[in-house]
Amino acid sequence: MRTNKKPLILITNDDGLQAKGINELAKSLREIGDLVVFAPDGPRSGMSSAITSAVPISYALVKKEEGLTVYRCTGTPVDCVKLAINEVLEQKPDLLVSGINHGGNQAISVHYSGTMGAVIEGCIFDVPSLGVSLLNHTEDADFRNSGRLANLLARKVLKEGLVHGTYLNLNVPNVEEVKGVAICRQSDGRWVNEFHRSSDAKGNPVFWLTGEFQPKEPVAPDNDTLLLAEGYASLVPCKVDVTDYVFMDTLKVWKQSLD
Amino acid sequence: MRTNKKPLILITNDDGLQAKGINELAKSLREIGDLVVFAPDGPRSGMSSAITSAVPISYALVKKEEGLTVYRCTGTPVDCVKLAINEVLEQKPDLLVSGINHGGNQAISVHYSGTMGAVIEGCIFDVPSLGVSLLNHTEDADFRNSGRLANLLARKVLKEGLVHGTYLNLNVPNVEEVKGVAICRQSDGRWVNEFHRSSDAKGNPVFWLTGEFQPKEPVAPDNDTLLLAEGYASLVPCKVDVTDYVFMDTLKVWKQSLD
Repeated sequence: MRTNKKPLILITNDDGLQAKGINELAKSLREIGDLVVFAPDGPRSGMSSAITSAVPISYALVKKEEGLTVYRCTGTPVDCVKLAINEVLEQKPDLLVSGINHGGNQAISVHYSGTMGAVIEGCIFDVPSLGVSLLNHTEDADFRNSGRLANLLARKVLKEGLVHGTYLNLNVPNVEEVKGVAICRQSDGRWVNEFHRSSDAKGNPVFWLTGEFQPKEPVAPDNDTLLLAEGYASLVPCKVDVTDYVFMDTLKVWKQSLD
Repeated sequence: MRTNKKPLILITNDDGLQAKGINELAKSLREIGDLVVFAPDGPRSGMSSAITSAVPISYALVKKEEGLTVYRCTGTPVDCVKLAINEVLEQKPDLLVSGINHGGNQAISVHYSGTMGAVIEGCIFDVPSLGVSLLNHTEDADFRNSGRLANLLARKVLKEGLVHGTYLNLNVPNVEEVKGVAICRQSDGRWVNEFHRSSDAKGNPVFWLTGEFQPKEPVAPDNDTLLLAEGYASLVPCKVDVTDYVFMDTLKVWKQSLD
């Protein structure tokens, strides 16, 4: 039974429990809440909102100390959120923070990211949810700026709340001095040069995913990719409801061809 | 080299190449285009927009006949779209159709669905893209209504095109007579009773994903879950850009606490 009034914060990620980023995130949030870390037992990058249904999942307690409980889970990031909230936590968390991801989740990466998949899931549970990612893929990245900004944003979200169906995507540039937090939109574009062709031991072709992000031109100035390149942290509010309300009107004109 | 002027249609799914749904989809679209089926070599349900980067992927030709080429791929639905367009097809497809899924992808299922992950990916490539799902999970479901509606909608999309960044999510009720196609929005809600607790051979607890969708009340009448229950097929236009432009204004007020 939780006996104090500190907020309960659920922490997860997609890089797995062993990653530096999630441990730095827990350190940065320790002072503001009771933390439950419930994270994959290994890397789950690029898992998006994938769920596991063909096999069962399980979890195990890793450690429990004052203000910090840590679990590992065999599932995806979304599985972690579902299992933690449905089966493990005594109450719904006051906040979910996913990250700190090793690598950016700006632009369309919100669709591929397991970090952001967990955030979307938290939002579906009506838990105020945010993702934090650093634009540095290396194992020993410097998470000081990201941790500081995660702490500031977490406090703000705990105080103000978020509206139903909206979650936050914070990305932090890999620079010494962040210029500030820029409120902006998800930039448009796509990945190019996506495969490195190689071969297996028998000489058959195999394909490794790689590539670089190509922004779509012209770009409006208030987009995350551009602002990150200028040294700002980008904060994009995102919606679970992906309906294109504008295009509904066009479809209504089509409708007579469909009946 | 393609020598005729028939549109090139890329077909994929998340149930895998062996599923009845994708074969019925190919049958229903055969008359309107040259088809390339490029689909996972087995079930990938619930894979969302997951991508494979830790291991390489590969593909193989299954069959090639006039107007129909079929490949199987070791990757996720999104991997299939990426690999087909980047490495296999001679030109960008004129249309992507994903499905016909065994089971509905209405409401928030758009986030978990591998069927819809492939559709989002096609849309990112600027290929007009649509997903088709039938509200029947069984292997031998009757796809006649779904195939007919997929054909009508595919023709319409080929003729009219879609706007950049918008894709379509068609769900078909499991009824004898569909009342018509309803243009509507993604319904709000979440899944409940999500886990069946069981145990492994050693007696340790394991958790199987299950549950049912609980719509959030009150529900506006033009939502997919409700219209499907009334016997309509639901057609929801969706956006790749998930930015919450309205909430950006609230965040701009917060901004001073974050610098």
